Formats: sequence, structure tokens, C-alpha cells
Amino acid sequence: MKREEALFLVKKQLTEHRYQHTLGVMETAVHLAKVYGADAAKAELAAIFHDYAKFRPKEEMKQVILTQNMSKDLLIHHSELWHAPVGAYLVQLEAGVSDEEVLDAIRYHTSGRPGMTLLEKVIYVADYIEPNRQFPGVEQVRELAEKSLDQAMVKALQNTIIFLMKKNQAVYPVTIETYNSLVLN
Amino acid sequence: MKREEALFLVKKQLTEHRYQHTLGVMETAVHLAKVYGADAAKAELAAIFHDYAKFRPKEEMKQVILTQNMSKDLLIHHSELWHAPVGAYLVQLEAGVSDEEVLDAIRYHTSGRPGMTLLEKVIYVADYIEPNRQFPGVEQVRELAEKSLDQAMVKALQNTIIFLMKKNQAVYPVTIETYNSLVLN
Repeated sequence: MKREEALFLVKKQLTEHRYQHTLGVMETAVHLAKVYGADAAKAELAAIFHDYAKFRPKEEMKQVILTQNMSKDLLIHHSELWHAPVGAYLVQLEAGVSDEEVLDAIRYHTSGRPGMTLLEKVIYVADYIEPNRQFPGVEQVRELAEKSLDQAMVKALQNTIIFLMKKNQAVYPVTIETYNSLVLN
Repeated sequence: MKREEALFLVKKQLTEHRYQHTLGVMETAVHLAKVYGADAAKAELAAIFHDYAKFRPKEEMKQVILTQNMSKDLLIHHSELWHAPVGAYLVQLEAGVSDEEVLDAIRYHTSGRPGMTLLEKVIYVADYIEPNRQFPGVEQVRELAEKSLDQAMVKALQNTIIFLMKKNQAVYPVTIETYNSLVLN
């Protein structure tokens, strides 16, 4: 799929703010793909579609999770996690994206997973550091991303987990497994 | 077992510093047991023996974990976690403590576990806040412990997880499950 077609399809799904974020992730993902030797075309496509399901109604996402045999554990955790696996499913169904590597990069862009592929890490980090992002700690992850994708992953995960701790929120177990898999190496 | 006999048995296993800590945990655990209606005698016994295995050689603890079919997952995580389940085993074997509630309070005093009993929470929190403890955040947990044992647990777990994040250390998955079980209620 060409960039223009993908952007056309995704723009209809997003707010203007979220579309600008998507353009930032696209630009950053292509950059990181080139730095670390990932497939830049796949990085671009995954980035464009990563938030495809972001504004679907919760009930629709819940039904996809239930009917597509996704982890039931998602449903007891924050709905913010749902758009990633649901997005991978809908992007295939509605936009016809079939590349499993691209779909996995969409699927794991919020939770992570142990043993993430290079492409999955590129999308995860690009989503965290794209130029529109402004929050405490993002600059440090931007700097790390130029040196080590894994170190950027670790710092982003640490920031995310600390953020959840400070808000009294649960941590999706897969996110801890992702973090552990990176620091136990 | 009488307090004096238990203290006599445990003193031989510990440094003077750790023995003083144990006396602090004992005093605090009995206090919390009375506040929250746990069995004060069991709290006292569990507190006295909670660090029984603290100074066993790593190799001995590893062998106990392997031969007693404890979770292999312990071995890829920090050895600081080992003395709790190993302690529960050795306290039964060497000191003849057979009360399963007391042994569980020893077993889970470092990792926690989802669905902790009242006695387990009393020991976990007492270990965290006993009067000799001095570290950032301990005073807040001391105050919470007078109002809500669960809130004290949540804060102690949050502090511990943030501490591990800042040290680039892995988090034992059971500890996250414990935290999640308390905040998802």
C-alpha cells in the first residue's frame, strides 16, 4: 500500500491531533528503521496504522477481544491497551494490511512483549519519542534512541511503569515481562 | 513455640543488625495484628522467623529451590527473593514450625502474592515499616499502616517497584500480580 492511500485511510479514523501524532511516529519510525537496519517501508506502514483503532467505542473493542480470542486479561486492565491488538485486527480486516510483521508492530505497540522484533521496537520507541510528544523524561529517551534501541525501550518502559505507580494504576503483566526480558539479558 | 525459644533459634542465624531488625518486625507485627484483628501469636512467630534463611549461602538456597520444587522463575530473579520461600522450608525443617499460616507469612514476605491473607499482609508491612527502617517513603507507609493495611501494602509495593525501576532491576512477576490484585479491586 502506498503512503498516501494509507494516510487517507487512517486520517478518517483519527482526530486531527492524533493524525499529527501519527505523522510524527511515521517520520520517527522511518528514521529509526534506517539507523537500526529495519525495513523502512514496513516501519512506515506500521507507524501510519498504529493508532487506527484508537477512537473505536470501548464496546466494539471489547467485542473484538472476545470474539477474536485475544487475551481476556486485557479486559481487566486499562482500555488504553485495547486499541493496539484490536487495531492489528481491524487494519487487516478493513484496510487489507496482511504483512504479519507490520501487524505485530501494531499489535504490541502499547504493551510490548518479551522478545520483540526490531520492527516492533522501532514502532514502540517512535510512538514514545515522536516530535509532538512532550512529557518529563521524553528527551532522555530521544537521546538514548540514537544510541541503543534497547536502552530507549528500557527507559520508556521504566517511565511508563513509574507513571502507572504514581497514578495507583495496574501494570499489564506483559509490560513487566517485556521490561524484565530487556534488563535480565 | 515460646517467644524466647524462637528468638534463641533465630539469633544464631542472623547478624546483630538483622536480629535488631527482627525484633522491630516482631514488635510492629504484634501491634498491627492487634489493630487489624490478626492472630498476634502467629504474627509474633512469623515475624521472629521471617528472615531465618537470610544469610544462608546462595548455593544452599538454590538447591532448596530446585529440590523442593519451588518456582524455577525465582532463579532468574534477584537472590534477595530466595530467603523467603527457602526460609519457610527451613523453619519447618530445622525449627519445627508447622503452622501453615505462619509458614506462608514467611514464604510471601518479600514477593507478596495475589490474595494475601491478613497475617501475610501484617508481616509484609511490619517488615517494611519496623522502627529501624529508614529510607525515603517509609514514614508515609507507617502512617498508612495505622489506617489501612491494604493502602500501606500498595504504597510499599509502589515504592519497591519504583526503586527497582530506578536501579534497572527486574521485577518479580508475582510482585506485580500482588500490586495489581490490590489496585484492581
